[in-house]
Amino acid sequence: MLESISVLAAGMPDLSVFQYSIVDNIFSMTVATMGAAAIFLFLSRQSVDEAYRPALLVSGLVVSIACYHYFMIRHSWQGAFVLAEGGYKGSGAAFNDFYRYADWILTVPLLMVELVAVLRLQAGKATSLLTRLVVAAALMIALGYPGEVISSPEGWAARVMWGALSSIPFFYILFVLWVELTKSLDTQPVAARKLIEIARLVLLITWAVYPIAYALGGTMTALEAKAGGNVDPSGIVALQVGYAIADMTAKAGFGLLIYFIARAKSKGSQGYVIGETAGTPAVA
Amino acid sequence: MLESISVLAAGMPDLSVFQYSIVDNIFSMTVATMGAAAIFLFLSRQSVDEAYRPALLVSGLVVSIACYHYFMIRHSWQGAFVLAEGGYKGSGAAFNDFYRYADWILTVPLLMVELVAVLRLQAGKATSLLTRLVVAAALMIALGYPGEVISSPEGWAARVMWGALSSIPFFYILFVLWVELTKSLDTQPVAARKLIEIARLVLLITWAVYPIAYALGGTMTALEAKAGGNVDPSGIVALQVGYAIADMTAKAGFGLLIYFIARAKSKGSQGYVIGETAGTPAVA
Repeated sequence: MLESISVLAAGMPDLSVFQYSIVDNIFSMTVATMGAAAIFLFLSRQSVDEAYRPALLVSGLVVSIACYHYFMIRHSWQGAFVLAEGGYKGSGAAFNDFYRYADWILTVPLLMVELVAVLRLQAGKATSLLTRLVVAAALMIALGYPGEVISSPEGWAARVMWGALSSIPFFYILFVLWVELTKSLDTQPVAARKLIEIARLVLLITWAVYPIAYALGGTMTALEAKAGGNVDPSGIVALQVGYAIADMTAKAGFGLLIYFIARAKSKGSQGYVIGETAGTPAVA
Repeated sequence: MLESISVLAAGMPDLSVFQYSIVDNIFSMTVATMGAAAIFLFLSRQSVDEAYRPALLVSGLVVSIACYHYFMIRHSWQGAFVLAEGGYKGSGAAFNDFYRYADWILTVPLLMVELVAVLRLQAGKATSLLTRLVVAAALMIALGYPGEVISSPEGWAARVMWGALSSIPFFYILFVLWVELTKSLDTQPVAARKLIEIARLVLLITWAVYPIAYALGGTMTALEAKAGGNVDPSGIVALQVGYAIADMTAKAGFGLLIYFIARAKSKGSQGYVIGETAGTPAVA
């Protein structure tokens, strides 16, 4: 493990100004998106019923934590390269991958909380569901990390093993959420149903990005390239851009959906979301 | 005292990239955890009865202060090392241990305040209890610090003496809190009792970390190693990670418990915490 991390540090490939800047800029844009989403979610709590405010508060925390981590990720990115001879070369400092894991450790359980909080299931049921989801989320992240830091071809089998172990709680979470979201549809107001169906889909699509990225970073070819110091620059750029877009959708986009669901379920605002009048005329 | 501090500065051991990064990353994660906890506690005040809002406000202050200090502790950690020859070496600058003591001086008395505030004891009783706890907390920290900065084998006896003196108010606080929390159980609503029992346990377990860390750092072997410049790197890593985890639990985790207790004791929210409907169905 020690070796693989120093390999990673030494293995930052040369990037063109364009490649370096794409990643640097998408990180900055993610900071702005997460920060704006946090302000929106915190200040929108007063627009929904008391019962749904904790859901918006927790959604706001998720994007706040992500905002901090993307600020730090960008800082680490800038420290990992130096501008030389018209391009960017590795500075010798490692690009800190742990920020993403620290972010997931904190935010994935909170994403479970915001979803269960907005569904408002029966007492007892919510607690049981939440406990299972949070434990599974912690296991998923803890089991993925030892594999993520492996970056030598000899470690390929171990990386696949950690990935496979991590996939068990991953699929368990998606399965439980899909089943529970589907089951909950009957008890939800009509206005919220469509939104919950969208949330179910967003969850499935955005979450799929993470195991795909994990798998692409761990193919034998990718590991051999890392070990030989010939890391494919476009692979790194694609991975970072992919993670950033997935995080924006799975956190800020998902938080927005939680807001719309909370809004649809709040009394007196049925069917009207933003800039729309309800069944009753706006001016009496 | 001056001498022993400079010994500490000179004694920063060589760390591998992995060892340095574990500590650096757990500090960053602690900043994120404390910051998120602060936002949560400040914004959750409106979800509890007026009477419990001061408890949440003070809990929010504790994690805000800790967030600031961990940001500074991390800054000091990064300044105490330089990346050289594939590892980290002492830069000559001291890793500033005083941040932890400054943090404790401010937050430990506030932790007493948040706990007593959420219990809502009889007038007069709360004031007397709080006065004793706050004075004891100040004594505990003030008496521990002179021992903490001793790092030469000649100072061993003095270190043990300061540690023993500091332990008197330490055990006094734990004893008083245990007795008072147990006594208060009868007067608390059923929904809050279980939570107060958990709070009692969290207090006992997390607080135990501090004297253990103090004792391990002050054995004759540890002091001889420090004096000889052969500080055990894994010992330093374990100590910093241990303190960070204990602080996250004793401050952010404890603050969350205070929120749940306040929530359980607030009118009209009995039995429902997050994501659950109370006795009445969600959809009428």
